[in-house]
Amino acid sequence: MTDVGAFSYPGLERLFHERGRLAICTCLIAHPNGLSFTELQAACELTDGNLNRHLHALSEVGVVTTEKQRGSRRSLTVYRITKRGRARFLAYVDALESVVRDVHERSSAATVGNRLATT
Amino acid sequence: MTDVGAFSYPGLERLFHERGRLAICTCLIAHPNGLSFTELQAACELTDGNLNRHLHALSEVGVVTTEKQRGSRRSLTVYRITKRGRARFLAYVDALESVVRDVHERSSAATVGNRLATT
Repeated sequence: MTDVGAFSYPGLERLFHERGRLAICTCLIAHPNGLSFTELQAACELTDGNLNRHLHALSEVGVVTTEKQRGSRRSLTVYRITKRGRARFLAYVDALESVVRDVHERSSAATVGNRLATT
Repeated sequence: MTDVGAFSYPGLERLFHERGRLAICTCLIAHPNGLSFTELQAACELTDGNLNRHLHALSEVGVVTTEKQRGSRRSLTVYRITKRGRARFLAYVDALESVVRDVHERSSAATVGNRLATT
């Protein structure tokens, strides 16, 4: 009835699919000059612990880089998305886009000549 | 620098965002007359345990219904997406679509006049 694996969506990389990571990467793509931990936290509304964990995971695989900048009083860590990370994340977003297209096509095709559950 | 919560994406309902659930719901939307456990499993490439857990969670909140159909030899359980579940899932997909649009807009805006990290 259905093709094997037709809905398994292997292009949706787990690395990016978690909502917090999707937020962090989009935010860093919008700010290629980098953001501080506090700025990222405010924009993505993540807890300290969660943001820390996600940044660590993304840094480990080379998607995010950190740079310590010396300020007048104290040093500031700036987080950036790398070129490689950007390309990889945009490929994930393309996969996301094709899922959206898939849902639209299949939902409109399915309503023609089929009955829906009534609850 | 960034708006508070600008990237928090509250529309991305956790109920649907997990890749397996996204697969199950799209698959059920494409098959409004319902599918058996085996058919769902093949289409979504999920393990017994994972598919069971997701179907249970989706049933608990009224997104999926189960119906036992009597066959000549044994009964067959058929899984369907409910009308309410369909509407709720399509709202989630709309949110997903706006994230994709957001990434496209922000990534093209950001490349103008900004430098990218070079690694």
